[in-house]
Amino acid sequence: MTPESTPDTPRAVDGQRSPSAVRTAEYPWIHADGRVTFAVSAPSARTVELKPPGQESGLAAGQVLPMIRGEDGTWTVTTPPVVPGFYYYWVVIDGVPTNDPNTETFFGCGAATSGLEVPDPGTDFHDLLDVPHGEVRTRWFHAATTGTWRRCLVYTPPGYDDDPGRRYPVLYLQHGAGEDERGWTTQGRANFILDNLIDRGEAEPMIVVMNNGYALEPGEVPATPPYTPEQNARLLDSFRDLLVRDVVPMVDAAYRTVPDRRSRALAGLSMGGRQALSVGLTNPDTFASVVAFSAAVFDPLDPETAFGGALADAEAFNARTRLLWLSAGTGEQRFDEALTSMESVLSKQGIRHQTYRSQGTAHEWQTWRRSLYNVAPLLFRD
Amino acid sequence: MTPESTPDTPRAVDGQRSPSAVRTAEYPWIHADGRVTFAVSAPSARTVELKPPGQESGLAAGQVLPMIRGEDGTWTVTTPPVVPGFYYYWVVIDGVPTNDPNTETFFGCGAATSGLEVPDPGTDFHDLLDVPHGEVRTRWFHAATTGTWRRCLVYTPPGYDDDPGRRYPVLYLQHGAGEDERGWTTQGRANFILDNLIDRGEAEPMIVVMNNGYALEPGEVPATPPYTPEQNARLLDSFRDLLVRDVVPMVDAAYRTVPDRRSRALAGLSMGGRQALSVGLTNPDTFASVVAFSAAVFDPLDPETAFGGALADAEAFNARTRLLWLSAGTGEQRFDEALTSMESVLSKQGIRHQTYRSQGTAHEWQTWRRSLYNVAPLLFRD
Repeated sequence: MTPESTPDTPRAVDGQRSPSAVRTAEYPWIHADGRVTFAVSAPSARTVELKPPGQESGLAAGQVLPMIRGEDGTWTVTTPPVVPGFYYYWVVIDGVPTNDPNTETFFGCGAATSGLEVPDPGTDFHDLLDVPHGEVRTRWFHAATTGTWRRCLVYTPPGYDDDPGRRYPVLYLQHGAGEDERGWTTQGRANFILDNLIDRGEAEPMIVVMNNGYALEPGEVPATPPYTPEQNARLLDSFRDLLVRDVVPMVDAAYRTVPDRRSRALAGLSMGGRQALSVGLTNPDTFASVVAFSAAVFDPLDPETAFGGALADAEAFNARTRLLWLSAGTGEQRFDEALTSMESVLSKQGIRHQTYRSQGTAHEWQTWRRSLYNVAPLLFRD
Repeated sequence: MTPESTPDTPRAVDGQRSPSAVRTAEYPWIHADGRVTFAVSAPSARTVELKPPGQESGLAAGQVLPMIRGEDGTWTVTTPPVVPGFYYYWVVIDGVPTNDPNTETFFGCGAATSGLEVPDPGTDFHDLLDVPHGEVRTRWFHAATTGTWRRCLVYTPPGYDDDPGRRYPVLYLQHGAGEDERGWTTQGRANFILDNLIDRGEAEPMIVVMNNGYALEPGEVPATPPYTPEQNARLLDSFRDLLVRDVVPMVDAAYRTVPDRRSRALAGLSMGGRQALSVGLTNPDTFASVVAFSAAVFDPLDPETAFGGALADAEAFNARTRLLWLSAGTGEQRFDEALTSMESVLSKQGIRHQTYRSQGTAHEWQTWRRSLYNVAPLLFRD
């Protein structure tokens, strides 16, 4: 597909500014038909391009789109219609990927990165609505696993401060590779999704705890992606230790939780989905529910050895597991196929599980927002 | 002053990565002598420059510094020694100001902007130390003044959740022009400054409420700086209505505050300092203490008419005002002179006040961190 060379003038057509545009910016402009016009002033540049993070992200099929210079030095491009969702992107100035000055940045791809929000007409499950809102608390805690103070974000449901006698179940919710503990509330809108479900009585009021999925042992130097299998294993082990030994006890001490396995769920997306399955299924005394969105698990599962043999005895697994829930978007082929593969292994093995597919969405936050919206009503309810 | 063309290799010299560099970045590199080396890979660019926000920010005296291309396409520049503090900056690629891919962005200058943190050796008053930490809560509330839901940040001191019978005084703390409600905790580290003071018993445990200083009335379109005097007056009026009619009642209802004027202080920096003086001094029934850091008040004060005539009757002012506290950095001439001018008017008029000057720092966050550190111990204590 090729971009159009003459974008419409925003004021002349139906549409809206991207909700993630900064306060006074007119672009990115989302047309009524889903096309998106980007504009950047770069009078002295020789080339300006729009760069999506890759094919799996779903923006412009991962193609780098050339932008066209206007007489005033403003470069523009209009993409083909974009599936509603959230997309990281860069504006490439003479070969250098940079952030779009018109847009808020979000921590993804290992750095502050421009993000495009394309609203889904008629869909408001993740919007800030006129309902009671919980708080998102930033909490600092010292972790023995890393030997450092760390930051986590904690969603407390509406009314948490008004009912000091009430205790709540806890969902531990992890971001994807290159993101951090801010992802689920800024890009993912997890707090608004829960506010809306809780207001309608469709989800149990719950605490949601979001941690940085990267944990280094004392003195360890951060590795640079792509990681070797050994580095991935170390990342997984140190995250497991951080979560089970440091985070869960801290949360049970600092917040009014129901401190038992049945009232704890572990969920994550992509890299975080792999972490949720690996840590959750091998620590059943801590987590009775495990949830994975677009899990980055591409090797076929051996039911006898996968996840420390957790799947080997289906009867025992089904008896101790409150919920095993998996999802993917139909627009992210690798992850969709990985889910299909896992489904068949789990079914053959007699492992009770549920799955969900987000129609048309790719490896981006709309898939994960919809996944959270669909799984939250199933959590902590029998 | 001119930059050096051959930066030292970071690994070969004393120094450290900028604390605001992203996780795996090696630059910006802060040398032991305070020089800072920036590096950006831009093989196809014709010119790359380092751009500070202006002379008043204190970085490289506001000069645009050309970066020099290395054989590998990496452009570098080493600045002369930088006064410890926090500096917004851009990397200009062929004329386009962009963010430094090595650095976290911060909402300043009206957009997500690169920020350089230059640590002050031997100074840790604003660092995350091994002390009890409060929470920074993100709260959404509906404001009648704007007809919208808004986000504010609320610092609750250590132990807030452990002592449900205790009530706390409240400091309302405002950011500067082009920033937002996130500024005081991300750039300003207000939460760590308070944690450290409270741990040593040097400040009253207090709640700190941080709001976006830009408030539009329903249907109003955001103006683009520079503002006309009329636009400035409208911004001030709508912020006053937002704070006094919407925010203060919401905070007194949602948190365990001491809901009286003597237990409320209003503070702000630069534009927020002007807001603090204008709103605080004209609403003595709401705020008994008023604090202004680097206040953007450049016209000489007429003691009879300034701030709605609040200064006209010194005896009455001194009787009702618990604290009037003003500060500036000696490295920000315009604001330092404005403070000198205000001091002389206040003294001539017999208005009780206190002032502080941050030695050597410019119009940047180190001036405001030091100001908060110096004024907090005086708040809510007689």
